[in-house]
Parts: sequence; structure tokens; C-alpha cells
Amino acid sequence: MRLAVDAMGGDYAPQSTIEGCQLALDTYKDLELIIIGDNEKMAPYLKKSKRVKIIHTETVIEADDSPVKAVRRKKDASMVQAVQLVKDGEADAAVSAGNTGALMTAGLLVIGRTKGIERPALSPMLPTLNGDGFLLLDVGANMEAKSSHLVQYAIMGDIYMKKVRGVENPRIGLLNVGGESGKGTELVKQTYDDLSKLSLNFVGNVEARDLLEGAADVVVCDGFSGNLVLKSIEGTALSLFSLLKEELTSSLKNKLAAGVLKPSFKRVKDKMDYSEYGGAGLFGLNAPVIKAHGSSNKQSFFSAIKQAKIMHDEAVIETIRKSIENTKEAGE
Amino acid sequence: MRLAVDAMGGDYAPQSTIEGCQLALDTYKDLELIIIGDNEKMAPYLKKSKRVKIIHTETVIEADDSPVKAVRRKKDASMVQAVQLVKDGEADAAVSAGNTGALMTAGLLVIGRTKGIERPALSPMLPTLNGDGFLLLDVGANMEAKSSHLVQYAIMGDIYMKKVRGVENPRIGLLNVGGESGKGTELVKQTYDDLSKLSLNFVGNVEARDLLEGAADVVVCDGFSGNLVLKSIEGTALSLFSLLKEELTSSLKNKLAAGVLKPSFKRVKDKMDYSEYGGAGLFGLNAPVIKAHGSSNKQSFFSAIKQAKIMHDEAVIETIRKSIENTKEAGE
Repeated sequence: MRLAVDAMGGDYAPQSTIEGCQLALDTYKDLELIIIGDNEKMAPYLKKSKRVKIIHTETVIEADDSPVKAVRRKKDASMVQAVQLVKDGEADAAVSAGNTGALMTAGLLVIGRTKGIERPALSPMLPTLNGDGFLLLDVGANMEAKSSHLVQYAIMGDIYMKKVRGVENPRIGLLNVGGESGKGTELVKQTYDDLSKLSLNFVGNVEARDLLEGAADVVVCDGFSGNLVLKSIEGTALSLFSLLKEELTSSLKNKLAAGVLKPSFKRVKDKMDYSEYGGAGLFGLNAPVIKAHGSSNKQSFFSAIKQAKIMHDEAVIETIRKSIENTKEAGE
Repeated sequence: MRLAVDAMGGDYAPQSTIEGCQLALDTYKDLELIIIGDNEKMAPYLKKSKRVKIIHTETVIEADDSPVKAVRRKKDASMVQAVQLVKDGEADAAVSAGNTGALMTAGLLVIGRTKGIERPALSPMLPTLNGDGFLLLDVGANMEAKSSHLVQYAIMGDIYMKKVRGVENPRIGLLNVGGESGKGTELVKQTYDDLSKLSLNFVGNVEARDLLEGAADVVVCDGFSGNLVLKSIEGTALSLFSLLKEELTSSLKNKLAAGVLKPSFKRVKDKMDYSEYGGAGLFGLNAPVIKAHGSSNKQSFFSAIKQAKIMHDEAVIETIRKSIENTKEAGE
């Protein structure tokens, strides 16, 4: 498999991205990388390999760049080049830890949608207490969703969880404000009816309160709602950890006791850390495009590469295309 | 002030509700209560007082009753009677820890809206790290909101924070998926423009991630979004505490160290506990109606009574009515 890697995106690039690439090369002997980035900055971390091609550029899309403008104007940016390589057939998939909006824009404008897909969805795996995690989509690719979009998210999520995460019969949930049918907005009521008619393992409405308890394997929602939920979970966890840290270092006695508990705190923190689960897939594009977490370290960037590789090896995009086609035919 | 109290709602009723009433009677010498509930069950906790009138009923709206049906059919339920007393002018305000949907329905059907208000909003105070808290509205009274509704929420929230919580110039935020204007759905874009035109201290978009950090004093959103955010915060905090508890009791060594830190953990938990801030107001009705938290203990039920009392004493409803009238005139 040939993967295009934007080496310059993310808080710890290019060290974390290149180290992640190195780990992936060591792990997968059939992996070839096209790494796009600043030669001089990448050199300290990069071993020579026949399976690596480097494309040098000094142009980078910054975290605060306006997505659409950046993608249109910075054609030679590492991220845009990575996506263009996929479009041109030089690479099978792309990974970046850079500006999320820009990657969504580049993916949509350059690579385009899978045939039959109305809207792509940004789809991260989030943690659950038992460690299995769940897929939440969409978290912000598409703000004004229709029920037909949410139904396609469910189909894509189902395929992803089966093929990439090995879940046999993924439980599909609809994010809502109550468990009973008939709750929520017109959008979710309509989606509830539509999902009930498909041959998915639809488990009905799922409340935000029960997500981390593992209420479903795939949770679908409009991009506005998904983004709010994602950031509420993140923000609450961060706030709680910062409160705890403040309390536990407030006296010598506390520091000593907290020292004993350090491995326990670390385990709790790790359980809430979704970088372990890989990046957020941009589902619905015509090739695997993975957004690695902005604060990716070597391990989480590796996870994002692994995710792109499994999506390619398992022909996830082709399966989605066929499945959407079949659903349309069945509906006609 | 005369307050109607549904003594039978909530997980620990009637003990917690009656004890909360008792505390309120001891605290406010000008408070008169009409307590509706089951005489026999309340008797063990109730002291005689000239300022208390009891109305006996054995009918209760249960937590899993369908709101509209329950309010229509159980006219003699403690909650419905409490609201009816306000409508009939026998009481100035009502408090209940029972079924939220039923209380919203009863409030709307029996008491009705404040003149000029298009939709009421369920408005809880949520915790912030510095202890000030913020008002989130709406969290579920109105699923399909228009921008004119959100603008009215902002006006009501502003008045409430000034009059009841003593915040001089409340910072009004709009819940959104990004900080910059132009982000989000058509609803929030329109609301952003509308709020910018009013003489409120509008601080712009607020992201879900920053809520607990105290990004604003009042945060407005549609009821669907608000409910998702509320429950995401609750769920994440509960999940984290349960993870921590599991870890900290997993060995004798951990138990001993955790014992030293018990006061610290309690302080963190208390900071995240919004029952301290009182109940959720049903803003936009023609009288103060407060929904105390379902798991209210004596102290939090007292806080809900206090909240109803300040809303009455400070003429919050009348101020809202005038302010909405003035805004409409200014807009015409």
C-alpha cells in the first residue's frame, strides 16, 4: 500500500509524525510512504528506506488558517500535496494531523465523494469505560444534516466497525435527548423511522449521558450536535483532571498520597485518551483520508496510519460504495 | 411570599423535600408554604407551623409517566395541584423535584407564558471551575428553536443573572462549534447577528469545551443542543468518578492513599455538583416555576425554594415582561 503523509501538521510535527511513520514502516513490510514536508526539519528523525519517497515543501497550512482559502491558495502545502497525490493515483490514502477544516475541504474539493454519498462525515473513535470505544459521526463535516445523510453515516459506520475494528454486528445508535422513540427534533424523529427500516442492528435512541458507558458501537448525529458532544466530553475530562491535579498537589501530604496513586491516575487518563484509537476518518470520500489528533505523539500518529492501512486493505471505500448502491436500489 | 411545593417528586421525597421546606421556613420568616402531598408519608418530617398549609393527595406523577397524558389525567397529582395554585392566585410560585417533562407541560398548559415570550426555556445553573457557575438555556423545553427564541433566552438569562445571582454585567455567549462568527448552523449564524444588535454584553460564540472554564455567565442554545451538552457533561463526570473509584479501591495500598485524599476528592466532586446552585428555572412562564434536581437532598431542595423566592422578591417575571416589550418596540 502507498500512503501519502503530511509530515508538518499537528502540535509535535515533524518529530511525532516522522517517528510514527518509522514505527509503521517497521511494523508493515508492505507499506510504502510518500512523506511531504520540510526536508531539513524532518532529517533528524528520518531513516533512509527504499520504501520512503520524500517530497520537499516549506509551505504549511497553519492551525488558524481559514480552511477554504488555505486549500485554494497554498497548493504546495504539505497537506494539500498529500491529498493531491491520492487524487492523482500516486497514493492510496492520506494521513494528516493538521488543520481539521482544511483537511475536510481538501478531501472534498480534491478527492471528492464516494459515488452515492451525499455528505462526508468526520468520524472519530471515542473512549468507553470498557475500552472498546465507539464511533461518533458526524462531528462537524456537515452542519445542516438531513435524515438521508444520517442514514448514510449509519451504513458507513457499520461497515467501518466491522472491517476495521472487527465488531461482528455493530450496535447503531441515534444520538437523542431521550430513550423513547418520538423524542427530539424532526430530524431525529425522521431518522429514527428511516433507520428502523434498514437491515442494520439499530438499537434506537442513545442519550449523551450513556455514551461513555458504551451504549452503542456507532452513534450517528448531525455535525453540529456531534461537535458539541465531542467537545463537552473533552472539556469535562480536561477540567476534572485539572481540578484533581490542583487538589492533589495542594500539600505535601496530598503529594505523597497522590504519588502512590500515580499509576491508577495514569490508567484512568489513558482510558479517556482517544488518541489510542487512531484518528478521525473522513468517511464518504473516494479514498481513505485520516485526520490524526492535533496533539498526536508517535504512537497516535502510528495508529492513524494503521487505520488508513486497514481501510485500504479491507477495501472499505468500495464496500461503502456497493452498500449505498444496494440501499438505493432496495429503496426504489 | 406564598410558595406551592410538590412534596412528592424526586428520588428522596418526601423526606428531602419536607426537610428542605423546614430549612426554608427557618431561614425566611416571610415565607408561607402550601405543601401538597401524602399526609401520612410527610408527617414524620413535618413540624407544625402557622405558615404551612397542607393539601393532602395520594396521586403522584411518576418519573416514567408520559408528561402530557399525566398532566391531563392526574389533575389531583401533587405537581399539577402546585401549579394550579399558582394559576388560581393562591400561590406566587411553585417548586417540584418531579418529572421534568410533566412540570414543563403543566407550567405551559396551566400557568402559561409571560406576555411576549414565544417559547419557555428550561434553564439550569451548571458548575464552573471557579465556582461561579453559568446559566445554560434551553436544555430541552423547546426542540426546534428559532433565532428569535434564542434572543429571548439571552434577555431572560441576563435578567436572571443580574437579579437572582447578582452578576453585574452578565457575559452572554452563544453555544457554537467554533469561536469565530460565521461558524455553525443557519440558526446560530442568524442568532449571532441578532444578539450583536442588542444592548447585551454579548461575548460571541462559546465552544462546549470551554463551558466549565467559565467562558460566559449565560449560554444560549436550542433545547436539543443544550440537552446534549448538559448530559455529556453529567455523563463524563459520572463516568470519570466511577473509573477513579474503581482504581482507588483496587488494592489496600490504594485504599490507604485514597483515604488521605478523601477531602480533596470530595471538594472536586462538590465543585462539579450543580445541585448546590438550585434547580432549573422554567423561564418564560407567567410565574416562577423551579424544577429541583431529581436527586435533590434537603440542601438542594432548599436551594430551589430560595431561587423561587428571590425570583419572586426581585420581580423577575415582571422585569422580563417589560424588557421583552421594550425590545419589541425598539425592533419595530
